[in-house]
Amino acid sequence: MTDSVIVALDAMGGDHGPRVVVPAALKCLARDSALTIILVGIPDILERELHTHHAQNNPRLSVHPATEVVDMDESPAFAMRNKKDSSMRVAINLVKTGDAAACVSAGNTGALMATAKFVLKMLPGIDRPAIASELPTIQGHTVMLDLGANVDCTPEHLLQFAIMGSVLVAAIDHIEAPKVGLLNIGEEDIKGNETVKLAADLLRQSGLNFYGNIEGDDIYKGTTDVVVCDGFVGNVALKTSEGLAKMVSTMLREEFNRNFFTKLAGVIALPVLNAFKRRVDPRSYNGATLLGLRGVVIKSHGGADRFAFEQAIERAVREARSQVLQRITEKIAILHKDAA
Amino acid sequence: MTDSVIVALDAMGGDHGPRVVVPAALKCLARDSALTIILVGIPDILERELHTHHAQNNPRLSVHPATEVVDMDESPAFAMRNKKDSSMRVAINLVKTGDAAACVSAGNTGALMATAKFVLKMLPGIDRPAIASELPTIQGHTVMLDLGANVDCTPEHLLQFAIMGSVLVAAIDHIEAPKVGLLNIGEEDIKGNETVKLAADLLRQSGLNFYGNIEGDDIYKGTTDVVVCDGFVGNVALKTSEGLAKMVSTMLREEFNRNFFTKLAGVIALPVLNAFKRRVDPRSYNGATLLGLRGVVIKSHGGADRFAFEQAIERAVREARSQVLQRITEKIAILHKDAA
Repeated sequence: MTDSVIVALDAMGGDHGPRVVVPAALKCLARDSALTIILVGIPDILERELHTHHAQNNPRLSVHPATEVVDMDESPAFAMRNKKDSSMRVAINLVKTGDAAACVSAGNTGALMATAKFVLKMLPGIDRPAIASELPTIQGHTVMLDLGANVDCTPEHLLQFAIMGSVLVAAIDHIEAPKVGLLNIGEEDIKGNETVKLAADLLRQSGLNFYGNIEGDDIYKGTTDVVVCDGFVGNVALKTSEGLAKMVSTMLREEFNRNFFTKLAGVIALPVLNAFKRRVDPRSYNGATLLGLRGVVIKSHGGADRFAFEQAIERAVREARSQVLQRITEKIAILHKDAA
Repeated sequence: MTDSVIVALDAMGGDHGPRVVVPAALKCLARDSALTIILVGIPDILERELHTHHAQNNPRLSVHPATEVVDMDESPAFAMRNKKDSSMRVAINLVKTGDAAACVSAGNTGALMATAKFVLKMLPGIDRPAIASELPTIQGHTVMLDLGANVDCTPEHLLQFAIMGSVLVAAIDHIEAPKVGLLNIGEEDIKGNETVKLAADLLRQSGLNFYGNIEGDDIYKGTTDVVVCDGFVGNVALKTSEGLAKMVSTMLREEFNRNFFTKLAGVIALPVLNAFKRRVDPRSYNGATLLGLRGVVIKSHGGADRFAFEQAIERAVREARSQVLQRITEKIAILHKDAA
C-alpha cells in the first residue's frame, strides 16, 4: 500500500492559475487514492473552478483561503514584505506547520525561493537552497543542479549540491550510489576555474560516487546520474537547451509546411514525430525541486499546462513519500561524522 | 574583383590531417580564383596526397615544410617547448612574417591558442584572446564569444570580447552596429553575478549597440547579433547544445527505425529531414576565430570532414579580406580616445 500524503498547491500561481491547477489536481487525485490535496487561494475563484469540474464534494480535496496573489514579475522582496497572505506563502506555511508534506507553485521563482527560505529555513549543514530538475538523456534521465538559485558558489556549496542531488536520485530512482559529475570545460590546459577545481577535490574525498569532471555534452549523453554546477552556468545551460529545442521544432515545422509534398510527408511521419516528441517533451520534466529547505517545495514552470502541472504534483508526492529531506539530513550527518 | 589572399593551412592537424585538408584546399581554390593556399606539413605526405588528387602543379598551391606534428591530446606547454617545427607553429609563423594573411588548423585547441598567442602577440588594448564562432538561429546566425579560451573573466575582458565580436560581425555580415547581448540569468532577484553586472555598466557606456542582458534561450532565437560571455559559460552552453543536438538526432533515428511502417515514413520524410539537417548542420558553422591576436587564426573542429574544413578556410579568407584585425585596432583606439 502506498503511504497517504497531503500536498498543498498554490492554486493562484503561474500564468494560468486555477484553470490549470484545479484540473491537474483532480487528475492526480483520481490516479492516486492515497493522495489528499489542499488548494490554496481565493475561495470564490477556486469554488467556481471546482464547480466547473463538478468536484465540490471530493473528500480528498479542500480549499484553504489566501487573499493575495504574488504577481509573476513582482520582486521577491516586495512579495515577502507586502503579501503575507499570498497563496504562495500560505501553501508554504502549510508545509511548515506539517499540515502538508509538500507544496507546489507555478508562481514567480524568485519570490518562491525567498519565501520558502524565510518560512521553512535550511536543513542543517546546507547553506543555500538549489534548484534541481530532471532532464532527458539518450538513455533515460539525469538530475541537474543548481539551475539558477545561486549565481556565485563556493566549492563547499557545490559539494552540498552534490550531496543533495545524490540523495534525491538515490531516493527517487532507487539507485544506490548515483554517479555524480561536476560540470566543467575541457578545452583549456588548466581545465576549469579555481572553484570547480577545489570542488573536485572535495568531491573526491566526499564518499559520494564521484565520476569526475564532465562537459556540457555529457548532460544529454546521460554520462552521470547527477550533474552539479553553479546556478549561473546551470541556468544558462538549461535556457540554451530550451532555445535550441524551440529552434529545432520551429525549423522542422517550417520544413514540413513548405509545400504540398512536404505536408504530405509530414502527415505520414506524424506518428513517428509524435513518438519522438513524447520522449523529449519538456512538460514531462516539469517540476523543479527547491532542495535544501526543511520542507518539499516544487516549482512548476509558470506556463505549465494541465499535463505539465500534474507532473509537478507527482514529483512533490514522490519526494514526500521517499522522505528525501530526512535522507539528506542523515547523509550530511554521516559525512560530517566521517570528516570529524 | 575580389582581393587576392594567401592562407596557410596546418595540413597535418585534426583527426584526419592531409586526407581532409588537401581536398578541402583544392575545392576552395577551384571556387576562388584570387585565393592562394600554402599547405604546411611533412612534404612527402603532402606530395603524395596532392598526387592522389592530380594536383601537383597548381600555381596557387604550394607546400611549406614542417617536420613535426602536435598531437591532439598533447599539453600546450609540451607542444610549445618541444615542437618548434610543428605544422601548426610554422603555419602561424607564416602569418607572423606576413607570408600568409591567415591560417587554419584543426589541431589541438589549447596548443593552437598558446602558440598563436606566443608567436603573434595580442592586439593593442586586448588582454586575452577569445574563441568566437557563428551559431545558427531561427532567423539566421549569431556570433558568440568566448567559447572556452578564458575561464575567469573580468568585466573589462567581457567588454573587450564585445568590441571584438561587434567589429567581427560588422565586417563579415556588413551590419553597421551589431546588437550585442550579454549572457546572463533572469531567474534571480539580483539578476546575475557581480562580473556580469559590472560588464553591463561598461557596455552601456561603451558606444557599442548594447542590447542588454539576454538569457540562454536568446542565443538560438537570434535576439542579438553578438552574444558575450566568459569562456566557462560559453563552452558549457556550446557543448550542451552539441549534446542536445546529438540526442535529438539519435532519438529521431531510433523512432524512424522502430519498424517497417516507421522506416517507410522515414523514407518519405527523408527530403524534408535532409532540408532541416542542412539548416542546422554544425559542419556549416565550422571554423572558430581566435580573436584578439595580431593575425587571423581559425580553429577548425578536430573531426572536421572535407566540407566542414572548407567552411573554416572560407572563414579565414573572409576575415583576411574584410580586415577584421585593423578594424578592431581602430575601434579600440576610438573607444580609448572617447574615454580619455
